[in-house]
Amino acid sequence: MTALRSAVATPAAPQVLDRCRELVRPALEEAVGRLHPWTGEMAAYSFGWCEVGGAPAAAPGGKGVRQALAVLGAEAAGAPERAGVTAAVAVELVHTFSLLHDDIMDGDPTRRRRPTVWKAYGTGPAVLAGDALFALAVETLAAAPGGPGGIRLLSAALADLVRGQADDLLFTARPWTGPERVDPDEYRTMAEQKTGALLGCAAALGAVLGGASPATVAALDRAGRRLGVAFQLVDDVLGIWGDPEVTGKPVHGDLRERKKTFPVLAALASPCHDAPRLARLLESGRDPGTAAALVEAAGGRRAALAEARRQLAGVESALSGVPLAAGPVDELRTLLEFLVRREL
Amino acid sequence: MTALRSAVATPAAPQVLDRCRELVRPALEEAVGRLHPWTGEMAAYSFGWCEVGGAPAAAPGGKGVRQALAVLGAEAAGAPERAGVTAAVAVELVHTFSLLHDDIMDGDPTRRRRPTVWKAYGTGPAVLAGDALFALAVETLAAAPGGPGGIRLLSAALADLVRGQADDLLFTARPWTGPERVDPDEYRTMAEQKTGALLGCAAALGAVLGGASPATVAALDRAGRRLGVAFQLVDDVLGIWGDPEVTGKPVHGDLRERKKTFPVLAALASPCHDAPRLARLLESGRDPGTAAALVEAAGGRRAALAEARRQLAGVESALSGVPLAAGPVDELRTLLEFLVRREL
Repeated sequence: MTALRSAVATPAAPQVLDRCRELVRPALEEAVGRLHPWTGEMAAYSFGWCEVGGAPAAAPGGKGVRQALAVLGAEAAGAPERAGVTAAVAVELVHTFSLLHDDIMDGDPTRRRRPTVWKAYGTGPAVLAGDALFALAVETLAAAPGGPGGIRLLSAALADLVRGQADDLLFTARPWTGPERVDPDEYRTMAEQKTGALLGCAAALGAVLGGASPATVAALDRAGRRLGVAFQLVDDVLGIWGDPEVTGKPVHGDLRERKKTFPVLAALASPCHDAPRLARLLESGRDPGTAAALVEAAGGRRAALAEARRQLAGVESALSGVPLAAGPVDELRTLLEFLVRREL
Repeated sequence: MTALRSAVATPAAPQVLDRCRELVRPALEEAVGRLHPWTGEMAAYSFGWCEVGGAPAAAPGGKGVRQALAVLGAEAAGAPERAGVTAAVAVELVHTFSLLHDDIMDGDPTRRRRPTVWKAYGTGPAVLAGDALFALAVETLAAAPGGPGGIRLLSAALADLVRGQADDLLFTARPWTGPERVDPDEYRTMAEQKTGALLGCAAALGAVLGGASPATVAALDRAGRRLGVAFQLVDDVLGIWGDPEVTGKPVHGDLRERKKTFPVLAALASPCHDAPRLARLLESGRDPGTAAALVEAAGGRRAALAEARRQLAGVESALSGVPLAAGPVDELRTLLEFLVRREL
């Protein structure tokens, strides 16, 4: 009985991620294999497949959320497996391009406990490797059946991605208070562009390539975008109040780094709050424990979690508004639970 | 009589370039206007339209060779004007993206007598502005009628561009002599990828968007690629023996910078030459006058000019092998003359 139930039950999130990763890996390796050997090595290094110099490695790659969304979105829309795999390859390439370039812009020296590509290979080579991945993503989609609609979807996501990154960089120079401060709504828009756009593209791209209806494509895109915002908001909450044992980041890390995240911006925007005092504390980067308590007392944490729940409800409403295959949608829900909901 | 003759004669190259630039400028401004204001300013700065901070400027942009090729290629293939303009916008955006990123990789502090974007705005912002231009180029083409074929052509050119840049960067670390030295053929392949691919794409892209036959598209692409190689070889000759008054660069500049260019590589590959002695001199970067004389004595200059002529003959044979409108092809020939042939 137990065996039968587990045979028909939805697999757990890590199994879903593993299944999608294994399905996508050969096509991703084939695509990366078409790169110039040098940019190909940098790409393989950032996927965790090799060390600097090319020796094989099995370093942790990312969780593979985007490729899983692409595979499951295609399956949910009844698209052929090939469509989901091609979409997954394209979004993984774009995601890796954006990590390589963002790490340069943000000056981040490590990612997944290894030196970032610009640290390991130099800034110029990392710029070039990112460009090569970007070009390869476009080339991969351009060669696919159903490519034109896919290219339009991907290019809109890319434009949003770059736009969101621009705002994110500019936010650091804006003041904490006054008319020039960053409004929580502005932050949410940035998060939708920087994080949501590619997740939306991932969820919808396989469906586009498989010839799904515009309504289905739009619903999957919207679901992925909402998931992206929810994911960012949960990440913001964990960046302040998360357990360092679990997050692998220092306690109150985002406050030490003076990051303008949603909980902080919501606290500063709260009408009954002493914003100037909190702003001085945040600007100093000192005493992050007190700053965290003030942000929480001003309702910043509550506002972030409430907004994340609202976004997740939007995911659910998008998924239930169009006809989708039940099994893959259940797996999508398992991923949502794993990525976001268990924190809410 | 004189007035009548000048009315039907092919206009001179600067007039051809001006006409194309004026035709393309509104659509290019419209596209750049869709960027985030910050990346849009960096783009406008690099086109010479504004200063840092956004104040209007009329600084020299590039010659506009790529946009002219796109317009003339479309006209030669009988494509609608709109096709040529869209193609021109896409290739100018890609060209500017590649300049922004190449200047970072090469550490070049100035371009067209102004600080490069990374010098003026910072490395991270310049990476981002390049990415934004790249994404905008793809978006522009994806939205155009006839886009799918155009995207395939552009993405192949982009892959070549990045591959050529990778080889160009790696060549600097290779030895001057011995089995690991850079062969002149390898250099020519690099030049075709780094410079020729985008010129080929430019010449053919408007024709693709306008629905020209595959044979016409292939011929225009080949013509542009050959032109790119010829252009690079002439540039290499001018970089060693050019008049500083004309080139705006120091005498023997490429030898002082220890650049591995075609004339040098051809000299080192020449069988009856004392390669080790020349290699030592080149590696030192000292006494570039003697090095130039040795390269010339070993036939390096002659080999470069002969190869450039061979490439130009390839342009001519490509253009005369398919039916093309006479007027635009005459203007294309005027550009060839202006860009390359007058040096041969």
